[in-house]
Amino acid sequence: MPAVAVAAELPPLLDLTDENITANTIIINNQTHDRRLKYVLERLVTHLHDFARETRLSSEEWMAAIEFLTACGKICSDTRQEFILLSDALGLSCLVDVMDHPKPENATPGTVLGPFHSHEALEFVNGESICPPDKGEQCIVICTVSDTKGRPIENALVDIWETDETGHYDVQYDVRDGPKCRGLLHSDKDGKFWFKAIRPVSYPIPHDGPVGQLLEKLNRHPFRPSHMHFKFICEGYDELVTSLYCKGDPYETTDAVFGVKSPLIIELDTVKSAEMAKMYGVEIGDWVMRYDFVLTSQEEVAALKQQKASEALAKLGVTREVVAGLPIADLD
Amino acid sequence: MPAVAVAAELPPLLDLTDENITANTIIINNQTHDRRLKYVLERLVTHLHDFARETRLSSEEWMAAIEFLTACGKICSDTRQEFILLSDALGLSCLVDVMDHPKPENATPGTVLGPFHSHEALEFVNGESICPPDKGEQCIVICTVSDTKGRPIENALVDIWETDETGHYDVQYDVRDGPKCRGLLHSDKDGKFWFKAIRPVSYPIPHDGPVGQLLEKLNRHPFRPSHMHFKFICEGYDELVTSLYCKGDPYETTDAVFGVKSPLIIELDTVKSAEMAKMYGVEIGDWVMRYDFVLTSQEEVAALKQQKASEALAKLGVTREVVAGLPIADLD
Repeated sequence: MPAVAVAAELPPLLDLTDENITANTIIINNQTHDRRLKYVLERLVTHLHDFARETRLSSEEWMAAIEFLTACGKICSDTRQEFILLSDALGLSCLVDVMDHPKPENATPGTVLGPFHSHEALEFVNGESICPPDKGEQCIVICTVSDTKGRPIENALVDIWETDETGHYDVQYDVRDGPKCRGLLHSDKDGKFWFKAIRPVSYPIPHDGPVGQLLEKLNRHPFRPSHMHFKFICEGYDELVTSLYCKGDPYETTDAVFGVKSPLIIELDTVKSAEMAKMYGVEIGDWVMRYDFVLTSQEEVAALKQQKASEALAKLGVTREVVAGLPIADLD
Repeated sequence: MPAVAVAAELPPLLDLTDENITANTIIINNQTHDRRLKYVLERLVTHLHDFARETRLSSEEWMAAIEFLTACGKICSDTRQEFILLSDALGLSCLVDVMDHPKPENATPGTVLGPFHSHEALEFVNGESICPPDKGEQCIVICTVSDTKGRPIENALVDIWETDETGHYDVQYDVRDGPKCRGLLHSDKDGKFWFKAIRPVSYPIPHDGPVGQLLEKLNRHPFRPSHMHFKFICEGYDELVTSLYCKGDPYETTDAVFGVKSPLIIELDTVKSAEMAKMYGVEIGDWVMRYDFVLTSQEEVAALKQQKASEALAKLGVTREVVAGLPIADLD
């Protein structure tokens, strides 16, 4: 615990009012030597206080917020993350993803991770099914992964997850015996990977907790359009967290968590030929999802992040050193 | 759950970027008919997004924040409130208190409630001790309570709490047998109330949780100067939550939660005459705290809140209807 001696360098923190509390909180926080933390805390305290000042936040509302956050924390478990739901529903997750993973025009856009990714997924080989048999509408997913120059990427690790036919992820069940409707695959030498799954269904985000209550107060529905999650991990490439959305879903343009992007909406096809059915071990009439993913290299992302951060600060009229795409506080 | 039909009135929420996510999140939230909620959410989303945009918040930092908030929620219990500690340490509690309880110049200032108020306090009659015997330095507390015109207030309910001699509130002990160092009293017909207690000691706010870790990262000490909490509840008067601080405390000007105000710092006296010792049932040399509290009427506070809210909005260049001191969203 730091000694009280640091106090000697600080102005006396006395008689703080709605007008001087912000500057003084920033001064006391600035005792850190971490220039990124200093910058982030300065902006956090400024916006937190401005929010309270502009709304004239009352003690009663403040206490309701304390209780809301506490309830969010209490409902969190290994398999439920209410704060991610909150961030998703307030558009923050979408915003952070866009900023942290800028893409060249021809790369596949990212989208929100959501709270249902797990590290339990098992490995599959191409062609296998990641879902239990005889549930949901069968769907063969046939994809490629390449770089922005069109070169196939071999051996990319692809992490896939979707809900079951009832709209629930495996981790949402109290009793379960291992991962379901999720799996890890590797792309082959032509950058191709394929697997059997079920046609995604739309579903509500968990709305029996504080975030659900907030959505209800806001007259917002909790639904996400049908989608399948993909996460790509591949050396030299920026991690891509994205989803494919099934065209024509009733929630396509009102996703509760702002995740839908036009290039990620795909029209599903069906298996029409016996030849194709045989090749993939599926039936005529089964659904087919096809997509060609394009990964961005780490160099491309690093350069874009640095450029966009500098542009954003310039637009805000802020002068700050930007290190690895992140602005930091000035030296004292 | 609201039907998807509301979607018809909304613009399509597609292809959201760091530039258009804020406006679209506000549009979807604006489906509520609660004009106060609408205004608060609009400001919340704006500041949350501006904070993320200005800092270029990374996914890694976002996840650290999610984990921090989750840890805060997990450590909360009936007797521990980490989110109040967080609000206190970030200066928000001080700010909200000042705005929600504006005072005329001659009224006693309020200060932070803190996380250790409990509803377990027992009633005492004037003169009794609210602390267990033979612990700490004995202190007789002799106070009056009046209105801003100097008229004594009879029968005000006074809720008092302080730590024991080791700097811990009763609720911080795992094993305890009822409330200690807290009590409820009523002022007499002359507005006077008095009780025995112990001389307050300085202590660290609980720093074994996420808020303590944050303070450590910021090189901030977690100490509060020695103080005794008072809360006044009296019909017709604004609830006053305040504290008295013992002059000369080493943390007097660096309170970890920004609670100290000059008019609340008092110099302790000692019992010097046998007559006084006899009158209050104390010993020569015991400490004496004296204070004259001045409550603000509900009318005075309501008028000040309305005035200050209007002034604050004008200063911000914002035009909004202000109802009971709180700005609300315009009608659609």
